[in-house]
Amino acid sequence: MAETEVAQVRFGIVGCANIARKVARAINLASNSILHAIASRSIDKAKRFASDNGLDPRVKIYGSYDQLLDDPSVDAVYMPLPTSLHVHWAVMAAQKGKHVLIEKPTALDVGELDTILEACQSNGLQFMDGSMWLHHPRTVKMKEMLFDSKLLGDVNYIYSTSTISASPEFFENDIRVKGNLDSLGALGDLGWYCLGAVLWAKNYQLPTVVTALPDVTTNSDGVIVSFSASIQYKEPSSSGATTNAIIYCSFLADTSMDLTITGSKGSLNLNDFIIPQRESSASFEFTLGAKFVDLHIGWNVKPERVVVNCDELPQEGLMVEEFTRIVAWIRTTPGVLPDPKWPEISRKTQMLVDAVKKSVDLGCKPVYF
Amino acid sequence: MAETEVAQVRFGIVGCANIARKVARAINLASNSILHAIASRSIDKAKRFASDNGLDPRVKIYGSYDQLLDDPSVDAVYMPLPTSLHVHWAVMAAQKGKHVLIEKPTALDVGELDTILEACQSNGLQFMDGSMWLHHPRTVKMKEMLFDSKLLGDVNYIYSTSTISASPEFFENDIRVKGNLDSLGALGDLGWYCLGAVLWAKNYQLPTVVTALPDVTTNSDGVIVSFSASIQYKEPSSSGATTNAIIYCSFLADTSMDLTITGSKGSLNLNDFIIPQRESSASFEFTLGAKFVDLHIGWNVKPERVVVNCDELPQEGLMVEEFTRIVAWIRTTPGVLPDPKWPEISRKTQMLVDAVKKSVDLGCKPVYF
Repeated sequence: MAETEVAQVRFGIVGCANIARKVARAINLASNSILHAIASRSIDKAKRFASDNGLDPRVKIYGSYDQLLDDPSVDAVYMPLPTSLHVHWAVMAAQKGKHVLIEKPTALDVGELDTILEACQSNGLQFMDGSMWLHHPRTVKMKEMLFDSKLLGDVNYIYSTSTISASPEFFENDIRVKGNLDSLGALGDLGWYCLGAVLWAKNYQLPTVVTALPDVTTNSDGVIVSFSASIQYKEPSSSGATTNAIIYCSFLADTSMDLTITGSKGSLNLNDFIIPQRESSASFEFTLGAKFVDLHIGWNVKPERVVVNCDELPQEGLMVEEFTRIVAWIRTTPGVLPDPKWPEISRKTQMLVDAVKKSVDLGCKPVYF
Repeated sequence: MAETEVAQVRFGIVGCANIARKVARAINLASNSILHAIASRSIDKAKRFASDNGLDPRVKIYGSYDQLLDDPSVDAVYMPLPTSLHVHWAVMAAQKGKHVLIEKPTALDVGELDTILEACQSNGLQFMDGSMWLHHPRTVKMKEMLFDSKLLGDVNYIYSTSTISASPEFFENDIRVKGNLDSLGALGDLGWYCLGAVLWAKNYQLPTVVTALPDVTTNSDGVIVSFSASIQYKEPSSSGATTNAIIYCSFLADTSMDLTITGSKGSLNLNDFIIPQRESSASFEFTLGAKFVDLHIGWNVKPERVVVNCDELPQEGLMVEEFTRIVAWIRTTPGVLPDPKWPEISRKTQMLVDAVKKSVDLGCKPVYF
């Protein structure tokens, strides 16, 4: 096999959900991957997906997930299935030797996720969840500011939202509000981002305690459609600072994707952290050492805006490239193991999802780690 | 008495706190008021205040609050005293026929405030608290958007912060962290703004329930120095929407003054709602009907920025003008009663302060209205 062929990771998409359109495009945009096959439970739906999205005629089209997983040419799968189906199909994929890129939430709970991770691990396969924003160069830039230069000082406070104003059709039909398909509802779909952002801002330290706030709203299926949560880090950092975070996630409010991180020396703020307003560039604002001027009639500084270009690949393309870079490395270099960073990020995020769920189920009682 | 003399409201400042410098300037900037006298418990402190701030030599300087209140030329007082002294001195001022402009928090609890309001009411005197931001033309503009044009639709969510990174000296000496002077701490000082913003955004409807969040931090005096709270409106509006609000107030985090209001059709956002970054103009951003474009690779709209000039008078000057406009009207027009709007705003804000305090004291239990 020629080297270029080895380096090209051949993807199979398991499930033709709407989000798969975006990732199919990303797989084709990324330099080291190629879309090899798609599968739906219905061959007609898979064919329609292929034609609607102008897929290359050479892409194989399967009418069952099993057939795709049995295709020896598929190196890796992207899996945008309803959450309740993840554990079955991701484990199956791993058993068939496919690397796994899976949509969030990764599973219904950390127990299920561990089953998936164990299957990947024991077969030497990379696992990653579909949190695209982690791969945006803006996120990298903010991370430098937070952790390398420590420009903001100790992180005291994190605030994050993910809200959309869902349509009546969404509440009627979307899998994300169906108890038998995605029982985590807004917590799994939107909370994943906000809880992930809190962990990210704390460099993946786990919190002390998570408490759902009393504004939880559920639908007739008992699925969470709106909630807030408080996440506390009670163990002080070296300088004595503790951290509080608040997240707000809802299918019932106008679009928002806010992330604010307030440190001892400054703060940063952005309003589109999950999906940047524009694909080719994104920005965030920060303020350092803000004080009031004499007489408190204004501020000594104005927020500064940092613009980060993202013109080579969109964030989902960068995600695919990061995933396939590792996969290609594992495949070409004997002894190379999967990168434990990505499953660890997923697992900690899932732990926080589980904690919020438990707090909700306990009537907003605190859940300690 | 000539008409111009009647129209000029003569102010006495009771207490030479730092904030009095800003309001003394505002009294002089406003068109219908004049600074007539200042008082401190120490004549030396009062003299120093006068010289430090370049006050007109004709301003009378008193070494006791009583002397100022006994001066028949004083029409109205501005009172920036420690909260625990408010009820005594504000009632005394009202009994001596002075209109009362008082710093927030208005009192230690609504019972005390009612004593003050009753004294003002029975003497036909105007009462107003020192929430300057309510008088900024930006606030007026946002109010139009929210309530006149209903551009944002029903208010679903409000988020507000007021944080400062206080110095070690502040924690050592400032009255706002002393149990015997300002026992409400960050709740009274900072929470007043955020709770006031929630009420403002809900057109002064009282919430159903207020719950302090588990991140409350107190100092060795038992004074709150950092807290968050959830404020819920469970009674649906005409369209069925309920409203949740979250506020975060802290002496332990970098400067922030965020206000986000998310409605069913759009949202607005500003990061300096209490003290605008610049005195002469201020801005806010809003987004209407934000959706993701096809493939969810961006947004259909970008936030629009609205800039509002404030070049005639700063917000504290506008506050003084609004107060003295009413005072002058009462004084010149027989039968005119004080405007009940301002005491009502103060009273509802104090009720929310009391509710958060009660929730904190109960270990973050919900407090129903």
